Amino acid sequence: MRGRGERLERVLAERELDRMLVTDLTNVRYLTGFTGTNGACVCGPGIRFFFTDFRYTERAAAEVEGWEPITVQGDWLAAIAERLEGRVGIEDDHLPVRTLEKLRGKLAEGVEPVAAGSSVEGLRRVKDEGELAAIAEASKLADEVWLWSVERGLAGRSERDVARAAEARIRELGGDPSFPAIVAAGPNGALPHAEPGEREIGRGELVVFDLGAQLDGYCSDGTRTYATGDPGEEGRGVYEVVLQAQLAALEAVKAGVTGEDVDAVARKIIDEAGHCERFGHGLGHGVGLEVHEGPRLSPKSDDLLAPNEVVTVEPGIYLPGKLGVRIEDFVVVAEDGYRNLSTLPKELTLVE
Amino acid sequence: MRGRGERLERVLAERELDRMLVTDLTNVRYLTGFTGTNGACVCGPGIRFFFTDFRYTERAAAEVEGWEPITVQGDWLAAIAERLEGRVGIEDDHLPVRTLEKLRGKLAEGVEPVAAGSSVEGLRRVKDEGELAAIAEASKLADEVWLWSVERGLAGRSERDVARAAEARIRELGGDPSFPAIVAAGPNGALPHAEPGEREIGRGELVVFDLGAQLDGYCSDGTRTYATGDPGEEGRGVYEVVLQAQLAALEAVKAGVTGEDVDAVARKIIDEAGHCERFGHGLGHGVGLEVHEGPRLSPKSDDLLAPNEVVTVEPGIYLPGKLGVRIEDFVVVAEDGYRNLSTLPKELTLVE
Repeated sequence: MRGRGERLERVLAERELDRMLVTDLTNVRYLTGFTGTNGACVCGPGIRFFFTDFRYTERAAAEVEGWEPITVQGDWLAAIAERLEGRVGIEDDHLPVRTLEKLRGKLAEGVEPVAAGSSVEGLRRVKDEGELAAIAEASKLADEVWLWSVERGLAGRSERDVARAAEARIRELGGDPSFPAIVAAGPNGALPHAEPGEREIGRGELVVFDLGAQLDGYCSDGTRTYATGDPGEEGRGVYEVVLQAQLAALEAVKAGVTGEDVDAVARKIIDEAGHCERFGHGLGHGVGLEVHEGPRLSPKSDDLLAPNEVVTVEPGIYLPGKLGVRIEDFVVVAEDGYRNLSTLPKELTLVE
Repeated sequence: MRGRGERLERVLAERELDRMLVTDLTNVRYLTGFTGTNGACVCGPGIRFFFTDFRYTERAAAEVEGWEPITVQGDWLAAIAERLEGRVGIEDDHLPVRTLEKLRGKLAEGVEPVAAGSSVEGLRRVKDEGELAAIAEASKLADEVWLWSVERGLAGRSERDVARAAEARIRELGGDPSFPAIVAAGPNGALPHAEPGEREIGRGELVVFDLGAQLDGYCSDGTRTYATGDPGEEGRGVYEVVLQAQLAALEAVKAGVTGEDVDAVARKIIDEAGHCERFGHGLGHGVGLEVHEGPRLSPKSDDLLAPNEVVTVEPGIYLPGKLGVRIEDFVVVAEDGYRNLSTLPKELTLVE
């Protein structure tokens, strides 16, 4: 966690804020290391306060370093308000309306809440060495689970069975699923966020298998589309287009380009293959403590990629009532390219 | 879900609201049945709108009945704002400050947001037949998992191993843990929210085992404290006090009493045994779609219990550095008493 408070201090200086109140638990964890379910922190020039309640006093002592711990007994917001002064950044994108109203009632005269949401999320985009190591471990774990899953075969099992078994395997290996695994076969593959169902996976079907592991708080996210036998000409053709789009988009990833630029590379290939309407989501997103965070790779994203950001690159084509294909790698942005954390092959793989 | 919109309409009439905008996903699920990750609804006299995005159009069609489904393409808040008029209740205890600001910018003249948080939570307190059946199933599943866990023995295993195995067993039986299981042995039992650790459970220790299952969205919550051999005079004594407090508090549960009244019954017994400082949490809480919801049973709760509310009754004594005991049942409030959903014995049970 070292240095994160200092980075936030610099943001405060840029925004002319005297204090920042951080209430989103993921952001609190990022700054302080605290993993419990009730915590907040206040940052300012040389100021580091961390707040929790009696249930977490011991955990905070073990986890939080460089922030003065305060165990609040009684009025939570009053204890925080006491430590605020001047222009106070609040996480307006998380803080509930009612909480802000109550807080206002407890602030000393002259203390002014200022909308400063996404400040910590901005810091979270660029990962440090420890974070990159944790993310790489999570990715490696997930890759093992794909291999383990396809070794057990897909055809003849229900989507739900495959998904649940993969999640259980992630847990056996010491992680947690970073989201409920998606296993969507045949026509279900056309629903990008299908809930794995009781439908039995047939032969000659394309199976979208989207999986992520969370380890030490950090997430991975990836997708492979497998075939349970020859998926036919249309299936093979769609797969090839998605693969070419994915490979081309990967080559466009590097520091200094925008999310829109990278997205456009994949979208152009899919458009030219006549499927412009069938790629209904953005190309990718950042991943870290949350499975969806900044930057965004999408038609509307002016996010500039920077070294050590971690993003997915996941074009897809979805033909309603027929099939879906999505291929998703998980990469670290570098000065002049990327480092791919996904180790699984991307050629169309036939499995039982 | 039938009738829930009508119950909300009556709340709106009482509060002189023309519309209610519901954005909390648990509340949206309660009202409409929708289980996806992006949805909102607007309720008014004869008005039922449900909003989601293209990813969930099909799921909404399958799950949502009695609400007009709207798949929003483009500006989410604009689509909602169009359907609002007059005094609009908002969930100020959930809605982020920024979202309200953006919404205000899109409202027609004369449309006025009014703080109306907890309106749906209030409805959720009293369960209907279907909810009670789901909760009873979840509770039964959890009871099976305790029995299964203690059959495998506790002493010699790590707390984490016992907790993870119990969670895996819940999943094997078709549920999900409603919270991470707590297994806290010996001195760790004195930390009410201990994270199960690598410490091996010894012989002659008290083991706090707090577990819940979620099935079809509905949660259970319960605790038993087991002994891995004779826990000694102090342990036996503390257990007996907690058990007497729990039994007495249960007998105080019925419609029309306050949460404070029931809490006081247990607290008095614990105080009189000389442990007044060692029962540092409230006696219990409601359970439903969330594992913690209304009503509260605590020293400060003026919540009046009503028939078909579902609450925990969970006194505990925690002796720092030594041991902890908590006994938690999970009951349905009745007109003149309660129906206990927990089926496990409460006498001190010795396990391997």
